[in-house]
Amino acid sequence: MTATPLYGKELAAAIRAETAERAAILATSGRPPKLAVVVATDDESSAWYVRSIAKAAGQTGITCDIVDLGPDADAEAIVARLRGLSADDTVHGVLLQTPLPGGAALQDLASAIAFGKDVDGANPLSLGRLAAGLPAHPPATAEAVVAILDHYGIELAGRRVAVVGRSTVVGKPAAHLLLDRNATVTVCHSRTTDLATVTSTADVVVAAVGRPGLITADHVRPGAVVVDVGTNPTPDGGLTGDADAASLAGRAGALTPVPGGVGPVTTALLLRHTVAAATAR
Amino acid sequence: MTATPLYGKELAAAIRAETAERAAILATSGRPPKLAVVVATDDESSAWYVRSIAKAAGQTGITCDIVDLGPDADAEAIVARLRGLSADDTVHGVLLQTPLPGGAALQDLASAIAFGKDVDGANPLSLGRLAAGLPAHPPATAEAVVAILDHYGIELAGRRVAVVGRSTVVGKPAAHLLLDRNATVTVCHSRTTDLATVTSTADVVVAAVGRPGLITADHVRPGAVVVDVGTNPTPDGGLTGDADAASLAGRAGALTPVPGGVGPVTTALLLRHTVAAATAR
Repeated sequence: MTATPLYGKELAAAIRAETAERAAILATSGRPPKLAVVVATDDESSAWYVRSIAKAAGQTGITCDIVDLGPDADAEAIVARLRGLSADDTVHGVLLQTPLPGGAALQDLASAIAFGKDVDGANPLSLGRLAAGLPAHPPATAEAVVAILDHYGIELAGRRVAVVGRSTVVGKPAAHLLLDRNATVTVCHSRTTDLATVTSTADVVVAAVGRPGLITADHVRPGAVVVDVGTNPTPDGGLTGDADAASLAGRAGALTPVPGGVGPVTTALLLRHTVAAATAR
Repeated sequence: MTATPLYGKELAAAIRAETAERAAILATSGRPPKLAVVVATDDESSAWYVRSIAKAAGQTGITCDIVDLGPDADAEAIVARLRGLSADDTVHGVLLQTPLPGGAALQDLASAIAFGKDVDGANPLSLGRLAAGLPAHPPATAEAVVAILDHYGIELAGRRVAVVGRSTVVGKPAAHLLLDRNATVTVCHSRTTDLATVTSTADVVVAAVGRPGLITADHVRPGAVVVDVGTNPTPDGGLTGDADAASLAGRAGALTPVPGGVGPVTTALLLRHTVAAATAR
């Protein structure tokens, strides 16, 4: 068996094409969509990600303002800026980039992002509405997990899914989206006893912990689908995932590559949310 | 083996005693705590539950206003009343009783309950904050699950817990509270394939579906702890749980009885939340 690579490129391109059409319509009607990305870090992989969003936005006809507050910005300054952008009628989507200075938690500050502009589902109200089955923008990464599985026709209803990682931005919202699709969902984390035993019962394993190569052949049953959400920087300036692709190659049925799997879909969904937010106004 | 009964009475009494003390202090300082329960149903088991809350509130020094809008109330009228109570300075806790008329969903209407008065965690903002690890009142039933396990010294960290039921009021918030306690949590539901296989891997099974006797000896490993959240009315006017106690007796290690397990703890926690909300003002 060789694990089939589940590339995100084709799906991302389709989402971006549809989004670009809608962005063009908005622009013609005098409402050009705009995304504001608030940055308060000099973290390199964060900067790389923000640049990639800005580039993709530009190609899609969405203005992307990068609001760089610098790595020494305090929580009050960040919250004030989020409030300001939330009140700015020309801005339709607001994204607060992590990491944040002084160990501030995203979910603490993101309450200051207006619900309607919370295009990356960081405001706890978005998470709560998502969990309650009410309309909300899901975090783009969590939504990308389900979108890429759908794209490849991987059934979720009645299947067992192990989500490894319980972050507020990925693991928890992904669990809710998967539950909503009628999967039986287990959330594993750093305190899970005998992780491999737990994940080996799953048809689909979602790796979202930020530990390079954590998920190996020992962690999955033969033929399982692995969705790798990890984006860990490598010494040579590249990215590597949470899954050990070499180890999984002979055991998993399918695997999303890093880079080139979940990542491009995430960016495309973020843009789609921005256009949806601009349309809803 | 005989499953040890995990009664809620002692824990509920302790919570209520502490809550009564705090209620008395509030009353002396001119801020007598008040809970408003909005009812829009003539469902009998609902009426029974509301009466039991009112009685317990009275015994604890909390005023309980039952606001009965009748089974024909429409969503607008309910929302308007929830807004009114949220704006009323003499009311500290607001509870919207289910079932709701016309198939309205609790989470839709409960957004109208002010976050600070949302003593049963029904507003999606409360659920989102709970999921994000931020302060919020959890739904009392979900919190009671963890409280009763704690009371009996049942370890959760690193243990496997199966939550059967994915409701917004119990299953999902309970899953978050259990995750927060470092359990590895699986959420099962009506679409779960081979439920017994899934639940049999768990150290603790939380039954929260509303199907009498669903969880039997076949569903648990020997010695497992079963927390029964079910409150299904019986023909003779009593209550029965989601667990089949007779079947489990020889296999489970411990079981919360229905009635007398989770129920009394739920009511006590609701009163504690009301006093906390009154104190926070």
